Amino acid sequence: MNTLDPARGPRHHPVMPNFERRIPEGDTIERAICAECGHIDYQNPKVVVGSVVSLDGRILLCRRAIEPRRGFWTLPAGYLELGETLEEGAAREAKEEADADITLEGILGVFSVARIGQVQVMFRGAFADPDAPIFASGPESLEVALFAWDDIPWDDIAFPTVYWALAAWNARRGGPLGVPAGNPAHDPRGDRRMPARG
Amino acid sequence: MNTLDPARGPRHHPVMPNFERRIPEGDTIERAICAECGHIDYQNPKVVVGSVVSLDGRILLCRRAIEPRRGFWTLPAGYLELGETLEEGAAREAKEEADADITLEGILGVFSVARIGQVQVMFRGAFADPDAPIFASGPESLEVALFAWDDIPWDDIAFPTVYWALAAWNARRGGPLGVPAGNPAHDPRGDRRMPARG
Repeated sequence: MNTLDPARGPRHHPVMPNFERRIPEGDTIERAICAECGHIDYQNPKVVVGSVVSLDGRILLCRRAIEPRRGFWTLPAGYLELGETLEEGAAREAKEEADADITLEGILGVFSVARIGQVQVMFRGAFADPDAPIFASGPESLEVALFAWDDIPWDDIAFPTVYWALAAWNARRGGPLGVPAGNPAHDPRGDRRMPARG
Repeated sequence: MNTLDPARGPRHHPVMPNFERRIPEGDTIERAICAECGHIDYQNPKVVVGSVVSLDGRILLCRRAIEPRRGFWTLPAGYLELGETLEEGAAREAKEEADADITLEGILGVFSVARIGQVQVMFRGAFADPDAPIFASGPESLEVALFAWDDIPWDDIAFPTVYWALAAWNARRGGPLGVPAGNPAHDPRGDRRMPARG
């Protein structure tokens, strides 16, 4: 049996995996390891990539049609896929969630959300054709809209990182990009959950 | 059977997975899905985190003791682990590979290596105690050394991203950090391999 043939199934285990948890040789962390073939089932954080897309100072937000946080507003963002660059992933998510064709200007923020194993890379973006800024709800969005800063539904934001990315955008608006924002000082590991609503 | 109990095994499949490849509802990409319970085996890019640690203009490099690229020089860097922030991961890798205690100054570069499903976040770092810059070979390094820029073993660098991170460091040396470097124009997707040696 060729355990290295990816066509045979995910994690190279089409049949009867028999995993045990131990520290592999040369490693320092306990992993799940197949007792039959020695395959190590590494689990690592995932990359979320997204963008703050603005037009004349208004920001593109999507109201989530799916859990978690259905009904709350978020930026177009999602998991990076195998074979994609960060820029390709950010553009794909804007297309999928907001049906928007965008260009990317650079990185606004790089955040760690250690509690759920995520790294988030948030770009500053613009509509590919600012004279025809087309957008619409994708299957994951209930509605999509452009909000002036003061009109953003601050009480109905889906995730802490949406606040952080919006704050990074607001710090520079259309000015030159600089050092990317990181986690805020009050939550350096991204461990805090959204506050419960009153 | 509680398929959501992570204690039962990796990917929630301690016994006899029966995966088929299809596009999940609401998705656009084919995934491996368990025919028994519907569990989706998502595969996503991994995050590599590392640092360019310098002292008086000299840079800390590690000669790899492990494949791939055994014997070639690299920066202290490796896969981010679940539960870590980027900063924690970069500091851990410097400790593991170079036995160095470091502090981080900010992000130098964010690179996509789409060919092998990686996102690399490279920090600028310094020794925690510059008056006692202790370093030594960890188990993954044959040797560890500080190199002046002109003495870097340029013909024996392990990976393209090591060049990119070093170039990002050299562009600013100890000056203020700015917009992080991205992939170079000649390799926007990180698809190129290291050239064969003559």
